[in-house]
Formats: sequence, structure tokens, C-alpha cells
Amino acid sequence: GPPTTVDIDDADYELDGHADFLSKEIHEQPAALRRVLAGRLDARFATARLDGLRLDPRELRGIRRVTFLGCGSALYAGQIGAGLVEELARIPADAEQASEFRYRNPLVDPETLYVAVSQSGETIDTLAAVEELQRKGGRVVGVVNVIGSAIARQCGAGMFLHAGPEVSVASTKAFSSMATSFTLLALLLGRVRDLSAAHGSRLVEGLRRLPDAVETALQTSDEVAEVARRYADARSMFYLGRVRGAAVAREGAQKLKEISYVHAEAYAAAELKHGPLALVDAQMPCVVVVPDDELLAKNVSTIEQIRARGGPVIAVTNAELPEGLADAVLRVPRLEPELDSIILGVPLQLLAYHCAAVLGRDIDKPRNLAKSVTVE
Amino acid sequence: GPPTTVDIDDADYELDGHADFLSKEIHEQPAALRRVLAGRLDARFATARLDGLRLDPRELRGIRRVTFLGCGSALYAGQIGAGLVEELARIPADAEQASEFRYRNPLVDPETLYVAVSQSGETIDTLAAVEELQRKGGRVVGVVNVIGSAIARQCGAGMFLHAGPEVSVASTKAFSSMATSFTLLALLLGRVRDLSAAHGSRLVEGLRRLPDAVETALQTSDEVAEVARRYADARSMFYLGRVRGAAVAREGAQKLKEISYVHAEAYAAAELKHGPLALVDAQMPCVVVVPDDELLAKNVSTIEQIRARGGPVIAVTNAELPEGLADAVLRVPRLEPELDSIILGVPLQLLAYHCAAVLGRDIDKPRNLAKSVTVE
Repeated sequence: GPPTTVDIDDADYELDGHADFLSKEIHEQPAALRRVLAGRLDARFATARLDGLRLDPRELRGIRRVTFLGCGSALYAGQIGAGLVEELARIPADAEQASEFRYRNPLVDPETLYVAVSQSGETIDTLAAVEELQRKGGRVVGVVNVIGSAIARQCGAGMFLHAGPEVSVASTKAFSSMATSFTLLALLLGRVRDLSAAHGSRLVEGLRRLPDAVETALQTSDEVAEVARRYADARSMFYLGRVRGAAVAREGAQKLKEISYVHAEAYAAAELKHGPLALVDAQMPCVVVVPDDELLAKNVSTIEQIRARGGPVIAVTNAELPEGLADAVLRVPRLEPELDSIILGVPLQLLAYHCAAVLGRDIDKPRNLAKSVTVE
Repeated sequence: GPPTTVDIDDADYELDGHADFLSKEIHEQPAALRRVLAGRLDARFATARLDGLRLDPRELRGIRRVTFLGCGSALYAGQIGAGLVEELARIPADAEQASEFRYRNPLVDPETLYVAVSQSGETIDTLAAVEELQRKGGRVVGVVNVIGSAIARQCGAGMFLHAGPEVSVASTKAFSSMATSFTLLALLLGRVRDLSAAHGSRLVEGLRRLPDAVETALQTSDEVAEVARRYADARSMFYLGRVRGAAVAREGAQKLKEISYVHAEAYAAAELKHGPLALVDAQMPCVVVVPDDELLAKNVSTIEQIRARGGPVIAVTNAELPEGLADAVLRVPRLEPELDSIILGVPLQLLAYHCAAVLGRDIDKPRNLAKSVTVE
């Protein structure tokens, strides 16, 4: 492929006809994902090319575990990444809140690849986690958006997102760019192990079509706006998902919380009966993420249980759901199952956006929050 | 020590002058913890005696990681356990939701000790996780309360809590018994590795005094009832903690949710600025768990940030806090730092209890929930 070139000019800081930067950045995602992927798909060897990691195949083969470290949306993106690494490379992976990691005197394993994730590259807790890791002989790479940022410099290896400037406090295009870059990482780690060339090819082709699928998912915007008008005055909301739907549900809840100030909380769907179901009533809508996978029947059953208690359900899905199952259905395209999280995340971003708009919030600058948390 | 004998008779199913089983079970905790500890403290070798695990010292030494699996309160107890295993034994440990584990085609590592946690021993997702583990050659032990239960039988090795029958849907004495049993496990794993006899002795002595400290913590009840009268009508609440305070904050939020139907959500305190702070205002009280440890100054700063946004703060602590720092302070005794979670958890149970009472909820049988989740 051609070398990656990224041009960013002042136009990135203009609204281009959008009401706010958040709307602009949500709709820029297809272009952002094209930049993340540019020069990084290797169709010939059915893998990803991530030279910035500075790891040769033998070193990649020696990695025994992957741990993602981040805060906020970067943490949830890391949870998606951990799931993909386990699935594609069959090595254990997890994601941890960077601040908890740095303060709990972590065990640092020299055979683990640590991935520090931060849009700004300046997040204080993540930077401190990198420094702690390096002091303990850990191998850490950075996944950041801003070139020349502190985490990029401290790591000296990693991946730039090339998502372009993100101005709105709530992260959207950086989040989906992170998740996409972790898909590339998982593909690469898989292909130096037991992931077949056929499976790799399927993913390379899926990734190539991902920006268009996100473009299509963005066309749900008017429908989502209608859903937001019905439910934005909710007392609280739950966001539920299983396995591939779990981390993106967390990010969806975070987004709603950040910009609409509605108390949204995410749960692994099976946890519902272990506590949260007590809160479900007509004032508590539940957003259920339903990928078209082997857990579809479980998710259908979760939706039925919520509705039996009078809770309204908004299903976000790429599956065919039984008629009348949910109070609202937001449907997106399906590519490869490994890409479900990224595409299913789009209506969740739009839902937060439209709820905030209905409630008249200051969308780009929610109260009490800063774009980048550079002090503790 | 003497052999463990456990007598349970019909009296366990009577209220003994309490208004409900939850009150009875909360106040039974000192007695329950004495039963968990009975015959399991080895002062001579400064360790724990857990013969039920059926693991000799060489096998214990061969364990490379510990993973706790559970649902609801059992999961949060497992998070406390994971922290203790890392701290005392210096081997990596984590806790995972049993349903997510069973459905995500988990990597099963033969050198990991899996600990399946369930009060009833009948939790369907946890049982299925055990079966999946055993099919993949994993080594799993059970930590359950009910002798003869499905998980106890399936595992064939582990620890019984001996907490006595727990009737109220919300778990309290079983939760603190789980956390105590994991402290014993962490002590044992530590002492076959690098934990010194002096450190072990300190913990054995602390554990011996634990039931009395919990007894003292229970004396906050009237004070907690007063706090509940002030805040039970909150729109929502956040529960915040760092490291040793994080998992117990999760359990505290779960408890409030289950029985009072107030939407309480827990966060690692450092995540506050990455989203949830947008929701903080006078209608959003925050419960902050403040152990007297090296993170005290960080927690004080978190409290100041919340109050600067008008959020009322209820501090649950065993430290001396600056005068006027929080709107309410619930203070408990301090033993060893490793036991902080268990003791700090007591006022959180009482807070949930008294909020539910103020709101007139059906305390022992919250709507929509069952004591034991035996169907998906």
C-alpha cells in the first residue's frame, strides 16, 4: 500500500455546516476510519501492517498476553480490543482503568504487551501508568490521536489514529478509530499465530468495507432523533449487552451520561437479574445491543424480561428481530461479526447526541468535564 | 484449631426481634465471620488452613493466576479477592462475570486456579462456567454457602462459607463471608510464596479481631439511618472508591439499587472526570469510600471536586478526615489494611437498608428479583 500521509488544516476546526463539533465529528467517522486503515491493510498476506509497533514477527509471537490501559472512552475501546485479541489471536487479554493500575502496585509481566490508549496522548493517569510500566521493565506501545503528545513520546512505539482533531469533549471518531486500530492489532497478532489466511482475508475485506457500513449506520440519525424525543426525559436508563455487545454498551451509556446528563448505566445483560432489574419500570428505558450472533436468543429473552416489568426497550441491532419485540429498533448493516461493536456503536452515539439536543444541553462542552484530563 | 462444626436449626429462619431478615442478617455478620474463620487460622505457621481446597503446597505453588467467577455480589466479592491475591501472593488475579466467561469461548489456562463463587451454589451462569472450565481441563474450586448445592458438588473441592441460611434477597452476611474467605485464600497463597511469617501473623491476628470490628461498625446504624433520611429521595447516587475501596463501592451501589430502587452506580474514583462528573449536582449525592491508606489525599481531592460542583458527599472511612470535608462521615474501626473492604462495607449495607426503609420498600423481597438466579 501507499505510505500514510495525513493532512490536517484549519478547516478541521470549522463546523462545516453542522450545529456543533459533536455532530461534525460523528459524521466524519467514515473519513476518519479510512485514515486509520490507510496503508495498514495487507491483502496479500491477509494481515495488518503496523510498523509503528516496532515489533518483528518473532517478538509478536512471544507476546503471551495483551493489556489495554485507558480512561473513559479509551478504556471501553480497550475492552473491545481485549475481546478481539482473545478471539482472533487466542491469547488472554484484558483492559484496565489506568489510574487503578498505577496505584495498585501492579504486577508487570515482561511477556505482556501493554497498550496505552488516549485520544489526546496527554491523559495524566495513562501517562503515569506508562511510566510505571517502563520502570518495571514492561513493554508498552501507545495508541493515540495527537502526534507529538506526551504518551506518544514516552512510548516511542505504537499507532497513531489519524482521526483528525477532536474538539467536542465527548469522544466519537477517536473512539471508533481506537476500536478499529485494535481490530488491526488483533488481526496481526492472530495471523502470526493460528488465524488462517482465509479468516484474515475475510477480515481485511470487512475492514475495507467498514467506513461505508459506518456511513450507512449514520443514516439512522433521523430515526434516532425520534427515539430521543420519546425517551430523553427518562429518569435513568440501562444499557445492556453480551460479549460483543457488552463493551460498546458501556461506551454508549458513558456518552449519554456525558452530554445529556441522563444517568445511564451499562451492565452485562446476564447481570440484570442479579440486581438492576429491581429498578426497571416504565420510567427506566433499556437500550439493548443485539448483535446477530449465537447469543441472539439470550438477548431476545432479556428484552422480553424487561418488557414484562414494563420497561421500554430500544434495541440496537444488525439482526432480524421478531415483530413488536422492542419499543424501538435501530438497525445497522452487518459486515463481519468482529466488526459488530464499531457499527453498533454509531446509533448509540447518535442517541446520546439527540437526547442532549432535546434536553438543550451544551453539547460540545458538557458541564464539569474537560476534553483531556491532564491533572488528577 | 478445633474441627469446624456448624449447627443450623429452625431458629435461623426466625426474625429474632428484627423487623426483617435483612436487618437480622446484617447484624449476624460478626457471628457469621466467626464461623468462616473457625478452624481456618493457623497462628503457628502464620497462614490459613483450607483443607477443602484439596491442594498441597506444591500444587499451591504451581498456581500462576487466580480468576474468580461469579454474578452480582459474588462477582464484587471476587473483585475484592482478586485484589488481595495480587497484593499478598503477588500473582496476577482477576474477577469475571460468570455469564460473560461462559459465552465468550474463554481461554482456559491449566496453571490458573478458578474460583467459582455463589451463595446458593445454584447460580445457573456460575454452574455453567464451572462445567465449561472442567470440559477444558481447568482447575476450579467452589466457594459457596449451601452444602450439597450443585456448584459444591460439581467442583468437589473448595470452601464452605458456613454463613448460615441467607433469606433476604440482598446478600450481606454471605458477601462479607466470601470476602473473608478470599482473604484466607490470599493469605495461604501468599505464605507458600514470599509473604513473610511476620506479615502473615499480622493478618492472622487481624482476622481474629475482624468479627469484633464488624460488630463495632454495626454500631453506626443510627447514624446511617439519619443519613438515609437526608438522602434517600436522591434522584441517583454515585459510589466511588480507589483500589481497596473500589470493589466495595460496587457492592454498596448494588445493594442500594437492589432494595431501595435508587439508581446507584459505582465508579473507580479517577474515572469521575472522564464522564460521570457531568451528572453531579445537588440532587446527586456521592458516597466516597476512603480507606486510611496512601491514597487518602487523592480521595480527599475527589471529595473536594464533587462538593465544588454542589454534590453532597457521604464519606465512609476509617481515616481522620479534615473537619467539614464531607456532608456526612460514617466512621468504622481500622484493623489491618487488607481487611478495609470488609469493614468499610458494613455502613454501605446499612445505608441501603435504611434508604429502603425510608422509602417503604419490601426489604426482603425486592420487586423483580429472586434470591438465587437458577434460570437464565
